[in-house]
Amino acid sequence: MSKKTAIVTGCAGFIGSHLVEFLVKKNYNVIGLDNLSTGYKKFLQNIDRNSFKFHKVDLLKDNIDKYFKNVSEIFHLSANADVRYGIKYRNKDLQQNTIVTHKILEQCVKNKIKKFIFSSTGSIYGESKEIPTKENCAFPIQTSLYGASKLSAEALISAYAEAFDLKCYIFRFVSILGPRYSHGHVFDFIKKLKQNPKKLNVLGNGNQKKSYLHVIDCIEAIWKSKNFFQKKVNIINLGTNEYITVKKSIRIITKKLRLKPKLFFSGGKRGWIGDNPFIFLDTKKVKSTGWKPNLTIEKSVENTVEYLISNKWILKKK
Amino acid sequence: MSKKTAIVTGCAGFIGSHLVEFLVKKNYNVIGLDNLSTGYKKFLQNIDRNSFKFHKVDLLKDNIDKYFKNVSEIFHLSANADVRYGIKYRNKDLQQNTIVTHKILEQCVKNKIKKFIFSSTGSIYGESKEIPTKENCAFPIQTSLYGASKLSAEALISAYAEAFDLKCYIFRFVSILGPRYSHGHVFDFIKKLKQNPKKLNVLGNGNQKKSYLHVIDCIEAIWKSKNFFQKKVNIINLGTNEYITVKKSIRIITKKLRLKPKLFFSGGKRGWIGDNPFIFLDTKKVKSTGWKPNLTIEKSVENTVEYLISNKWILKKK
Repeated sequence: MSKKTAIVTGCAGFIGSHLVEFLVKKNYNVIGLDNLSTGYKKFLQNIDRNSFKFHKVDLLKDNIDKYFKNVSEIFHLSANADVRYGIKYRNKDLQQNTIVTHKILEQCVKNKIKKFIFSSTGSIYGESKEIPTKENCAFPIQTSLYGASKLSAEALISAYAEAFDLKCYIFRFVSILGPRYSHGHVFDFIKKLKQNPKKLNVLGNGNQKKSYLHVIDCIEAIWKSKNFFQKKVNIINLGTNEYITVKKSIRIITKKLRLKPKLFFSGGKRGWIGDNPFIFLDTKKVKSTGWKPNLTIEKSVENTVEYLISNKWILKKK
Repeated sequence: MSKKTAIVTGCAGFIGSHLVEFLVKKNYNVIGLDNLSTGYKKFLQNIDRNSFKFHKVDLLKDNIDKYFKNVSEIFHLSANADVRYGIKYRNKDLQQNTIVTHKILEQCVKNKIKKFIFSSTGSIYGESKEIPTKENCAFPIQTSLYGASKLSAEALISAYAEAFDLKCYIFRFVSILGPRYSHGHVFDFIKKLKQNPKKLNVLGNGNQKKSYLHVIDCIEAIWKSKNFFQKKVNIINLGTNEYITVKKSIRIITKKLRLKPKLFFSGGKRGWIGDNPFIFLDTKKVKSTGWKPNLTIEKSVENTVEYLISNKWILKKK
């Protein structure tokens, strides 16, 4: 059987680089696109160059026509993933998440690419009252520009699927943890503790409840779901059966670091405007594929801390 | 009490021009913006120029800063409203509906405008299985680029409302009928019958069930809802308690025109890709304000036909 060619956007990112490795192992040719704004080429250094080609590309501004010839699947992972600064840089989510997705979908039409895999987010549920939140929960109200931009991308993908005989897989992620993790609360806490191991400022009251998933479990779930679900539009939550509070997360991190910092909470239910105080997704659908996560949230946090300790360079973020 | 100033985008359009008249009667100063791509200046000719200023503006491309000073409310109605051609002109909905809405929301932030009224659509429910469809029905899947673009706009508005203390009113319309109606099925049918009164080509099998609302009823509903609902994000379906099939609609039209054309159906449940074969919205929420429509769908269709007969110029569409 001839090798399939897949595009991975955001290939140099945390999740993207693991996905490229995975797909190469599954005998794909992979074309990786990334603007290296938050990704790192060194994440890709061990990947066999016979099966993988990297291109530094600005998906928003560059002409991207040439990369999409003879491609059978697109894994569209590139995104602005920083929820917190949506309010400050108010064009970014719209441009990087919504408009870029539209541009990639146009490539599907032009090149008759029939499979589109997308990394969406549990943030699109806003502050859903249904917890754990199902894929078909009550029509949510957006509370962040990040969530809004990802919901817009989902909507575009579904409409293109309807019109152009495209099979799409929309994965609504909880926060992902594991090796190469390079933004989010574990990252922020370790960075702060490196500067001052005796105190830690925490956004919100620390009682926010969040769910996490390990990156390797995440990619296995994507793979299993893609083989299992065969509707035109497949929307799948990815997460674990658990959630933990920010305080608990801090305890795991500080125990691992053997630190006992004094905690200072900024207060309030939410860490920032648009922060969802309780994220916990219903994962029955993904589990119906036979998938289940190998790592608990606690193990995932520990594994992330271990990675950051042995890769301190990443804490000096671009 | 000093007069409030409102912006109406799409002021020269079918609904926009009625809204401007209404607001002027309610003692508003109105600044009307329109690019005249589908609107007509003559719709605005009877409005008192002491209370109304018209500006021809391209909301996507022009700098619009100067219009938004000292404005207290924005009625954002301008849009690409042609669902059917979304697949052909695939940038249009994204640009005119999503990106323009983002640009207008930025004006709210810059000018501290705290009230935003938006014309969304029942199309955002895709092909909901819950009929009549409630505002908080199960998370829908988009089937048209038009619906996707309006859902994206809704999402942006809600996220800005959360972040910037904005009160927003998102109205999900069924199709609107009445004087100045200038696109949609009644328009298309009359135009075709003018060319050939003996035959009528109909998209789909004619059994599509649709709901309609008269423009005057629509504007009354917007007004009542704006005074009644006071949450940060207010999402309200607008429609009547009824629906009719396309065939029934044709019977009303042809009876009014005293024609008996032979009907030719293109077949299929849907008139075009993305067409929803059954649109019927639950309107309990808007009725809780005390509003109810004055005109039945039948009367609305008749009134629309009367308007088009006495305003044949509009059938020669730009």
